[in-house]
Amino acid sequence: MKMRMEFDSIGSMEIPMDSYYGIQSLRASMNFQITNKTIHSDLIVSLAEVKKAAAITNRNANLLETTIANAIINACDEIICGKLHTEFIVDPIQGGAGTSANMNANEVIANRAIELLGGTKGDYDIIHPNDHVNMAQSTNDVFPTAGKLTVLKMIPKAISELQRLYNALELKSLEFNNVIKMGRTQMQDAVPIRLGQSFHAFASMIKRDINRLKEAEKEMLTVNIGGTAIGTSINVSAEYLYNITANLNKVSGFNIVQSKDLIDATQNLDGFVSVSGILKTSAVNLSKMANDLRLLSSGPKTGFSEINLPPMQNGSSIMPGKVNPVILEVVSQVAFNIIGNDFTITMAAEAGQLELNAFEPVLFYNLFESIETLKNATMTLVDNCISGITANEDRCKELLDSSIGIVTALCPYIGYKKAADISKKSLKCGIPIKELVLKEGILAAEELEKILDPLSMTQLNYLSILESKPKVNKAI
Amino acid sequence: MKMRMEFDSIGSMEIPMDSYYGIQSLRASMNFQITNKTIHSDLIVSLAEVKKAAAITNRNANLLETTIANAIINACDEIICGKLHTEFIVDPIQGGAGTSANMNANEVIANRAIELLGGTKGDYDIIHPNDHVNMAQSTNDVFPTAGKLTVLKMIPKAISELQRLYNALELKSLEFNNVIKMGRTQMQDAVPIRLGQSFHAFASMIKRDINRLKEAEKEMLTVNIGGTAIGTSINVSAEYLYNITANLNKVSGFNIVQSKDLIDATQNLDGFVSVSGILKTSAVNLSKMANDLRLLSSGPKTGFSEINLPPMQNGSSIMPGKVNPVILEVVSQVAFNIIGNDFTITMAAEAGQLELNAFEPVLFYNLFESIETLKNATMTLVDNCISGITANEDRCKELLDSSIGIVTALCPYIGYKKAADISKKSLKCGIPIKELVLKEGILAAEELEKILDPLSMTQLNYLSILESKPKVNKAI
Amino acid sequence: MKMRMEFDSIGSMEIPMDSYYGIQSLRASMNFQITNKTIHSDLIVSLAEVKKAAAITNRNANLLETTIANAIINACDEIICGKLHTEFIVDPIQGGAGTSANMNANEVIANRAIELLGGTKGDYDIIHPNDHVNMAQSTNDVFPTAGKLTVLKMIPKAISELQRLYNALELKSLEFNNVIKMGRTQMQDAVPIRLGQSFHAFASMIKRDINRLKEAEKEMLTVNIGGTAIGTSINVSAEYLYNITANLNKVSGFNIVQSKDLIDATQNLDGFVSVSGILKTSAVNLSKMANDLRLLSSGPKTGFSEINLPPMQNGSSIMPGKVNPVILEVVSQVAFNIIGNDFTITMAAEAGQLELNAFEPVLFYNLFESIETLKNATMTLVDNCISGITANEDRCKELLDSSIGIVTALCPYIGYKKAADISKKSLKCGIPIKELVLKEGILAAEELEKILDPLSMTQLNYLSILESKPKVNKAI
Amino acid sequence: MKMRMEFDSIGSMEIPMDSYYGIQSLRASMNFQITNKTIHSDLIVSLAEVKKAAAITNRNANLLETTIANAIINACDEIICGKLHTEFIVDPIQGGAGTSANMNANEVIANRAIELLGGTKGDYDIIHPNDHVNMAQSTNDVFPTAGKLTVLKMIPKAISELQRLYNALELKSLEFNNVIKMGRTQMQDAVPIRLGQSFHAFASMIKRDINRLKEAEKEMLTVNIGGTAIGTSINVSAEYLYNITANLNKVSGFNIVQSKDLIDATQNLDGFVSVSGILKTSAVNLSKMANDLRLLSSGPKTGFSEINLPPMQNGSSIMPGKVNPVILEVVSQVAFNIIGNDFTITMAAEAGQLELNAFEPVLFYNLFESIETLKNATMTLVDNCISGITANEDRCKELLDSSIGIVTALCPYIGYKKAADISKKSLKCGIPIKELVLKEGILAAEELEKILDPLSMTQLNYLSILESKPKVNKAI
Repeated sequence: MKMRMEFDSIGSMEIPMDSYYGIQSLRASMNFQITNKTIHSDLIVSLAEVKKAAAITNRNANLLETTIANAIINACDEIICGKLHTEFIVDPIQGGAGTSANMNANEVIANRAIELLGGTKGDYDIIHPNDHVNMAQSTNDVFPTAGKLTVLKMIPKAISELQRLYNALELKSLEFNNVIKMGRTQMQDAVPIRLGQSFHAFASMIKRDINRLKEAEKEMLTVNIGGTAIGTSINVSAEYLYNITANLNKVSGFNIVQSKDLIDATQNLDGFVSVSGILKTSAVNLSKMANDLRLLSSGPKTGFSEINLPPMQNGSSIMPGKVNPVILEVVSQVAFNIIGNDFTITMAAEAGQLELNAFEPVLFYNLFESIETLKNATMTLVDNCISGITANEDRCKELLDSSIGIVTALCPYIGYKKAADISKKSLKCGIPIKELVLKEGILAAEELEKILDPLSMTQLNYLSILESKPKVNKAI
Repeated sequence: MKMRMEFDSIGSMEIPMDSYYGIQSLRASMNFQITNKTIHSDLIVSLAEVKKAAAITNRNANLLETTIANAIINACDEIICGKLHTEFIVDPIQGGAGTSANMNANEVIANRAIELLGGTKGDYDIIHPNDHVNMAQSTNDVFPTAGKLTVLKMIPKAISELQRLYNALELKSLEFNNVIKMGRTQMQDAVPIRLGQSFHAFASMIKRDINRLKEAEKEMLTVNIGGTAIGTSINVSAEYLYNITANLNKVSGFNIVQSKDLIDATQNLDGFVSVSGILKTSAVNLSKMANDLRLLSSGPKTGFSEINLPPMQNGSSIMPGKVNPVILEVVSQVAFNIIGNDFTITMAAEAGQLELNAFEPVLFYNLFESIETLKNATMTLVDNCISGITANEDRCKELLDSSIGIVTALCPYIGYKKAADISKKSLKCGIPIKELVLKEGILAAEELEKILDPLSMTQLNYLSILESKPKVNKAI
Repeated sequence: MKMRMEFDSIGSMEIPMDSYYGIQSLRASMNFQITNKTIHSDLIVSLAEVKKAAAITNRNANLLETTIANAIINACDEIICGKLHTEFIVDPIQGGAGTSANMNANEVIANRAIELLGGTKGDYDIIHPNDHVNMAQSTNDVFPTAGKLTVLKMIPKAISELQRLYNALELKSLEFNNVIKMGRTQMQDAVPIRLGQSFHAFASMIKRDINRLKEAEKEMLTVNIGGTAIGTSINVSAEYLYNITANLNKVSGFNIVQSKDLIDATQNLDGFVSVSGILKTSAVNLSKMANDLRLLSSGPKTGFSEINLPPMQNGSSIMPGKVNPVILEVVSQVAFNIIGNDFTITMAAEAGQLELNAFEPVLFYNLFESIETLKNATMTLVDNCISGITANEDRCKELLDSSIGIVTALCPYIGYKKAADISKKSLKCGIPIKELVLKEGILAAEELEKILDPLSMTQLNYLSILESKPKVNKAI
Repeated sequence: MKMRMEFDSIGSMEIPMDSYYGIQSLRASMNFQITNKTIHSDLIVSLAEVKKAAAITNRNANLLETTIANAIINACDEIICGKLHTEFIVDPIQGGAGTSANMNANEVIANRAIELLGGTKGDYDIIHPNDHVNMAQSTNDVFPTAGKLTVLKMIPKAISELQRLYNALELKSLEFNNVIKMGRTQMQDAVPIRLGQSFHAFASMIKRDINRLKEAEKEMLTVNIGGTAIGTSINVSAEYLYNITANLNKVSGFNIVQSKDLIDATQNLDGFVSVSGILKTSAVNLSKMANDLRLLSSGPKTGFSEINLPPMQNGSSIMPGKVNPVILEVVSQVAFNIIGNDFTITMAAEAGQLELNAFEPVLFYNLFESIETLKNATMTLVDNCISGITANEDRCKELLDSSIGIVTALCPYIGYKKAADISKKSLKCGIPIKELVLKEGILAAEELEKILDPLSMTQLNYLSILESKPKVNKAI
């Protein structure tokens, strides 16, 4: 392999002639062999967007020669289009607060731009990674800004999947609107509910997740680009400072704004913690729903079996015919992972010291994984589970009829204590509630029929449709 | 001790004659001897507010006799005023989704109301804990609603302390506006900053916490009161359902609304997770700031020693004269605790099953502790630390002058590589940057003076005030 | 109230004449109004044990006058016996690495000892909190040592409850040995199991928890007493250094040893993290078992209903006759709390800086709560739940007979694919597996009877008792 | 691309003719597009080891034809040697408790074995993934067993790196044995320490991590292989059950044992939680040390600057000459990630239900990452940081001489109160402690010289080498 020699403050290294990355990328890739994974492609694109916007701004401010600027811009465009990503060789978990990722971008862009100008890779006299590509920038404003752009790219995709989930749940809610079943609290028979109501409740919950994620996006709109090293905008021209955000918006298509306190915006990562907290809340909801659906579909013979999940794959290597709730299981696992990620993100943010938080790379690594896996898990949840759920209407009715939970509806008429006695007796003797009440002459048949109608029990305000008012209070 | 006999579904127990609590409270207090602490007094008050609003609503709906209703209302008022709190004997960590706390309230209120009507405690024929005090209610709507009222009571107090912190930081920011010092990134000398800017950054960060907590309050405004057992409003009259929220607002002074999906609102606790996530984010910020202040005040002789903290107590039992950053240390500890609490809250919310989450008590236990300790820690932080901080201006200047970080400002004029060489040489030979640049004839004295003026380096846009444009780009 | 005046480095304060605590305690109690709780009484006793051992050692080394030493020893004995605990007024979450707790002990002991010598409280010329009570000590060795003694006091009580749980589970395992039921994996019908085997599995799991907790105790046996401020044993005599541990063992009854690296032992808290990790692992197991038992007892009519839990209290304020798994719910909640505490402990330990970890108080606050609530939850679990569990043998049989999971046993005879077909057909047509196999002439009746005997399916090695070898392999 | 058709319970799919994986793998890879990563190669090898051992055992028991068995064994050997790993296409986070990973192994091995026998891939009449490769196995015993084997493969590599770290720290401890410096507690000047002692303390701490990890290995030695679906060993012959472990040991080279309670061992994952807790404890220690070293190397001009780290790469894209503690930063980041992973692992283990824990895949995903990144971070820590650390002896001495912390040593001679006064006065007037004591005639020069010798202050028992005993006590 042909090599070129490059130099930095530490010394020199041989770099493969064909490589767009340079000495600083290579050194970093050797220093940090941690996950042996690569940085997220959305982050690579975001870095290129920042570099492009900076080149435009510096060019317009007459601080960067047009030829150089345009070469840089063209190189950035290639990366934005998905090219050269394999030249980003640094580990996503890296020391240096993202300096290695930033320098990897600077080097790749510089070398590609040099090439576009007809030069030889490594000839930094033509275009220098620091002086030109990184002009008016520091890792400390580029990296957090690119991180926020990345989150802004990713969240809408997650929202879009959650919206599909919401729609699928609402459809199921309508489909199951007339399936009456027994509700359960604390895993014990409670009072009737319609299956459609259960799915509507899931939908309502997911709606909140969507709304919170939209709020989360706002947290990401304020960036520190222009603050350079510590937020004091050292080495930045006024022209750059006032125009970089607008140019970045043109390049990226977002509506970001420059923080009014660039020093704060450089050193504090609470915005990311807030976003992660919202992702975590959504993970909690998804896992709760997944667990509920596992319960409702448990069986087929020895469980609740009120719903059926679409079979997606053989359930077992040893038990033939077994179909397992595998999609729901992966959803819960993704949720657990997001919750764990939230703690890593929290610790990383808390550990910031003085003018900079050096732990952003691990924060990004976890945050990006959280958003992406939330999106992916939701996608398979909609397509391979929710949309195919069917109800076992007969089973729901059978369980409902056998249950004593409807006794609750008697309380306003006969009081808690008497109702409790009836309930106990029914359970002990195996005589249904209704029969027992009639047999003991506690309420008249017609009235009882109205009171114990399961459907009406699931409706808001059913009491008001009764002619007779509840009587407990009068009995005293 | 004189005793009375009470009965429940399990059997009977002797209750001290003087006690307002009854058999269900006592049984629960024996079943759950976990923390041996008591439930938060704000929660007790909130429970009484719900009970009072329910009694008013049921009375107005002609479902509860006026005499009974008024006695209940009066009993609730006593609790709201701080009386009878010692009668709440159940452990804050309890099984049963809060049923024991709710029944404790029902029993205390019933017995006090009975007494107000001239009856004997325990004579539930007069007023029954379930039929009257709990009329049209279930633990499952009362407890979450009371929990949200409690959070709504507590958060403004926390916000108020954070606002005081914000003000104190802003004052310090002004006070230290002209103290120029060296900024540090990754614990290494970076570029100049003014101490006032550091405090302004803290203030900006705290401002976000305040804003997020205000958003958090909104999460708490939607309640499930009226949903009773599982959100289907079983045993609730239309009059109650439509009026309970308005009455609860009159009683409590808040502006809560009834959820449009009471089933969802009964079973899902994501609102609390969201609030806890916001508290956690604030904890991260407080701890980061506390750690920074510990760094800046480290010394007095072998540390940074750029600021002085007000001495609050002897620092050591063995080392005389030692003054430690004890207030900052307690702030970080509270932050760690809030972060741990967030995980418990997350797990509790995730563990909900079907129509109810049975793990609300431990969620509340942790959430209330988080808000309260955040408030308390912030209070002592303001009063016993921030307000008394002074700057060591001379020390700041001395460190700044000795540092080589100002070399950064030369980059736009001489390029990154040459600046790096200067920096290395300066560090090695101990010759200050300025001297070295002049000696090597790299820049003219006048220009250099302007470029290296530390104060101007800390100002936004200082480059633009220079007559001469940066030259690196032209050199190519 | 009569007051006395006391002085410290900060200034002076009035102290209630009757109080044994002094100015440093009072100042700390004002600086840290965080949880408004008190420090754990086992920690108070442990502090007194350390102080007593130190006084004995210093006396024997002729460094502390016998009269003074004996007065200190007597004062310590009173605290060890449970007296004077209300004089410990400092908040458990405190800044200063425990200095306030240590000085609270020093002041209370000094004042009580002064009193025993006929002096007036506050007259520290007689006995000085620092010079005499704290002689040869620092908070930095006293507090961690007392913390470890506290854990050593608490863990055996937790182990003892876990041992009772183990015994109760083993008894149930025997009791339910012949109750055959369907096993479930991923909430889907799997293959038969005996209920006794399920309880045996719980017992085996708890056994590991017990063994791990015994290992955890070993982590606590190495202490840093004698290291004073930073582990270099400054201000400690050789006599003290070599004898303090033995004396502390005599006083406390434990077998602690002095760390061979007192500097390490002073600054690193990983031993506590390790203990907390073990507690967390136990919490995971308890919560998993609690959840299983909630599943198995779900119903009574619409759930699994394979077991009955002893009813402990009314389950609902609105639903009469409802009995909830409240004890199991509190166990899970305690588990969630312990898991959250583990994170706080982890962060506190990680945050240590250089020669000391200043965050020990919040670590202790959480660790002690974890051990104590683990113990308390286990106690109520044994007494109020496990011991009273009964099996619904008929229900277990009914579910087992209805299930198709037994088809698995056919695999070795007819192959996975054919078994899967049978299983599908059985589920679709509602014809039991056995009937279908016979009908289709796949296996002979006698052989089938042997293969599908549920009991034998739950026994290890049942295949070997069959005369005929599995045939799948031969068929090819 | 040429395709073959395969069938399963769900239906049929086209599989690329060249692929060794089959329909179940492909279906799973489509159901679970979560992380888009692949399962760990050590896990792939471990699965192959289990499959090989099973084939040997079944062959020896005459249950599997020798030709088939040998073909399977040969296919497994290829995988063990690193071949065919790209045929493992399922996502590491997958539903189904690992069934997809197990079936992926079964299919790849079956197809390769078929090929070795001269058949065509997909012709499962020759060798069937379930009936032959998976014979006497279930995912539920294969997957946890393979997971434990994987941990057993990985931990020794981590231990080996920690041992190298220990050695490097011990070497530095010797190298720096005579560098006296000021110790700091709570970031405030405390008393003298030798730099070598600090590194020795780090080494002692790491030694505990090594010991704990060795204990962790023991947790992994007990496996549930032979338990099949739920631990009742359904479809397992006695010959298999009694020999599989021994054969697996021969194949893998470990000393695993079969659990005495296979049901427990199948459903409970606490062993993994325990291992993760130990990894987390080690992460805490590594991060604490990394933070200490960042503090000690802070500067070069405005920090502590007591040690120098080897420069590993350019520190900044904007600040020339800046060298950052990048290796230490990556160590802390890895620690934060491991701590977050621990919580995911904890939640996954807690979520197990009844006879199986379906969440093992995400547990493994996190656990393997934790061990591997711990190893990788430690490796770079040793090679690129610790080994190159140098001491700034002059700086250490300068700071020590300027400090007042040595006043502590006077306490036993002049009492805490007088020492505190001296200390305060020294700090205020800027007169060194020693000078002040002499000036005020408190102690004689010769005695003072002995007491205040910094070196002796860092030695255990230095007091005992003094002729004169401490006098405070006598003064009374």
